[in-house]
Amino acid sequence: MDTISNYKKKTQKSAKLFAKSLKLHVNGVSHNIRFYEPYPFVVKKSLGKNLIDVDDNKYTDYWMGHWSLILGHGPTKVKNALRKQLGKSWMYGTVNEQTIKLSEIISKAVPVAEKIRYVTSGTEATMYAVRLARSTTGKKIIAKVDGGWHGYTSDLLKSVNWPFSESESTGVVNEEKIISIPYNDLEGSLKILKKYSKDLAGVIIEPVLGGGGCIPASRNYLKGVQEFTHKNKSLFILDEIVTGFRFRFGCLYPTMKLNPDIVTLGKIVGGGMAIGVICGKKEIMQYADTTGKKKSERSYVGGGTFSANPASMVAGFSTLTELKNSKNTIYSKINELGLFTRKELGKVFGEKVIITGMGSLFMTHFVKHGITEITNSTQVAKCDSSMLQKYHFKMIAEDEIFFLPGKLGAISSAHSKSDIKKMVIASEDFVNSQE
Amino acid sequence: MDTISNYKKKTQKSAKLFAKSLKLHVNGVSHNIRFYEPYPFVVKKSLGKNLIDVDDNKYTDYWMGHWSLILGHGPTKVKNALRKQLGKSWMYGTVNEQTIKLSEIISKAVPVAEKIRYVTSGTEATMYAVRLARSTTGKKIIAKVDGGWHGYTSDLLKSVNWPFSESESTGVVNEEKIISIPYNDLEGSLKILKKYSKDLAGVIIEPVLGGGGCIPASRNYLKGVQEFTHKNKSLFILDEIVTGFRFRFGCLYPTMKLNPDIVTLGKIVGGGMAIGVICGKKEIMQYADTTGKKKSERSYVGGGTFSANPASMVAGFSTLTELKNSKNTIYSKINELGLFTRKELGKVFGEKVIITGMGSLFMTHFVKHGITEITNSTQVAKCDSSMLQKYHFKMIAEDEIFFLPGKLGAISSAHSKSDIKKMVIASEDFVNSQE
Repeated sequence: MDTISNYKKKTQKSAKLFAKSLKLHVNGVSHNIRFYEPYPFVVKKSLGKNLIDVDDNKYTDYWMGHWSLILGHGPTKVKNALRKQLGKSWMYGTVNEQTIKLSEIISKAVPVAEKIRYVTSGTEATMYAVRLARSTTGKKIIAKVDGGWHGYTSDLLKSVNWPFSESESTGVVNEEKIISIPYNDLEGSLKILKKYSKDLAGVIIEPVLGGGGCIPASRNYLKGVQEFTHKNKSLFILDEIVTGFRFRFGCLYPTMKLNPDIVTLGKIVGGGMAIGVICGKKEIMQYADTTGKKKSERSYVGGGTFSANPASMVAGFSTLTELKNSKNTIYSKINELGLFTRKELGKVFGEKVIITGMGSLFMTHFVKHGITEITNSTQVAKCDSSMLQKYHFKMIAEDEIFFLPGKLGAISSAHSKSDIKKMVIASEDFVNSQE
Repeated sequence: MDTISNYKKKTQKSAKLFAKSLKLHVNGVSHNIRFYEPYPFVVKKSLGKNLIDVDDNKYTDYWMGHWSLILGHGPTKVKNALRKQLGKSWMYGTVNEQTIKLSEIISKAVPVAEKIRYVTSGTEATMYAVRLARSTTGKKIIAKVDGGWHGYTSDLLKSVNWPFSESESTGVVNEEKIISIPYNDLEGSLKILKKYSKDLAGVIIEPVLGGGGCIPASRNYLKGVQEFTHKNKSLFILDEIVTGFRFRFGCLYPTMKLNPDIVTLGKIVGGGMAIGVICGKKEIMQYADTTGKKKSERSYVGGGTFSANPASMVAGFSTLTELKNSKNTIYSKINELGLFTRKELGKVFGEKVIITGMGSLFMTHFVKHGITEITNSTQVAKCDSSMLQKYHFKMIAEDEIFFLPGKLGAISSAHSKSDIKKMVIASEDFVNSQE
């Protein structure tokens, strides 16, 4: 039986429910990337390393809630903290003690977080980071990298997908205020930045490209861009929504001795509940303080109804507390598992793939067109993405292993070495089936 | 003892915690409007009609989580549903059955919801509504009303606060693509819309201004704007984030026999958990379907990591189910309490105030400058907002009644007539103290 037939056979309830979902929702989903052919399975619950669908298939999950679930699905301590919080309710719309607790832990771990503001999503956090850069500098142009993904905000919706020079979408209006620079190419980037230096408000970069292909930035590249922006009196913004608290207890940037002006956080720091965080230096964040300021003096920074809601604050606090209390054992474990994964997958696929990643994040690129290294999204675009999707889908259909087809994998503390070994065997199986 | 001294005396723990919050956060808050002088009290829990602060003061709450908590704080059935969901975890990042259940109930109650997409906040929902209007029409200009508030998205950040002609913020770049029309003034609005008709992508309006002063739109006004936009092949967008499921089981627009192209929802439909919803006609929403489309054909509409997360879906579903099962008794009750409130407050304040509102929403405007009616935000801006803040703060300090100072009040099913009577007595007390 072929892979698709096998998938259809074991996801019959999903097929019916997804048909219903298609009637109700645009393409049946509430996030474009959640759809894949022939139809995505429909989840009913999750626990630890597993997603469980409505047909009772249990998948070892490497998607892990858009990489937000570093402790796995529904970890006990976070669940208990949330249960307790439900008794105190989940929405106040006011200043609350739950927020102060989360901020204390974040501000100690993230030096740039001299002042914090919570919002509801990463998309909101990067939108405000851009606004603050423009307010602080009085300039308008924001630079991002080719393949950089900072959410759907109109302020950063450019050069996300190949071809990067083509508009991402109809209906977007301020693209001329966004410029794009080549990732990990300092000379090429500086050439463009210099051209726009007069009106350059800031540069925003993920220190490891997430959606763009799981590619670490070189320290030299980030240092060079930072040096230029600071000399130019522009802001250097690091988007650590994916990387914050992913590799260590804190952000990635201190390990590279960087000095960003604003850092955005999300995902892990919300413990699976909705969150976005803007962390910044005092002198920059003060633009967001509206008290006693005229409109022409302020940077109008949210949040919204759900900013700093106690459910997100408690889930984030208990997640970070568990990470902190583990005294690095969780990070050691998942970073080592990541290393093991990249090494073993490398052996399985040989020269057919390049495995990128860092710590507990990894991604398999099927090389084509003579690609010999992956240091930017242009190279990723030249790889065989349909083979990657085929590989991921085969594991969904036959091995009860879930990657969102085409996306990077994230290892959580709920995964074990034997899980990785199973995934490696499933990968071998895929290689053999292709020969 | 004066009001401020009284407040300080009973909120000593809040004072200490807020001092800490000030060190950690911009102006101590994560939403500009949550700050008030001398400092906001710090909440530790909430239940039913009450907010409880860290000094154990118990306030009868009319802010109700930015007006999202129509069943009061932590209603039992929603709490139980959330508890049960915690056992199935709170974040999947995939299609799930919880979403389908919520969409079934929304699509039956909201005719325009031929297709639904979930996002994480109201700000995201209105951003996407604007993008869809631009994609559908190929035009760029979006019209909103003076005083209309649709969240902090850069695409709608204009003419929110008086003076409406002044930029809301530094650091915003596409204001020239937003135009503003006078609320409830059809002739004045059409004059402006006609001027921009060639490039008009759509008009977005709240059928009851929320942040702009709790002012219902006249049916004649909305009908007239709708007629113009449809003749002009522009989109008519209703922002029902505040009004959806607030007055009846469904949106407000069908009661006015309107025919919007897109309706945005939030607040109540998330049961206090983070949510934003874009509901629209099939032929418009299909632009957001990215499958098989080139970039130049699609409207790139989210969501994000937290879109359609099962916690929000379950909280929304159980809230709407409780509203539906009450067979209109909840709506009858809170709408009547609203009517009673407006009538009794009117008696207390006499000609000093105008009480605006509808159903369970109400707002007290202290008239000045010869204002005799409140039908738009310009009139609101001419009222005595410092007196309103004084009135609200007096109730916080002396009567254990909470309104976010200066904002409209919302009645939930957890409120009773005796709560309203207490608030009316507290208001009388305020009037007497001013004489």
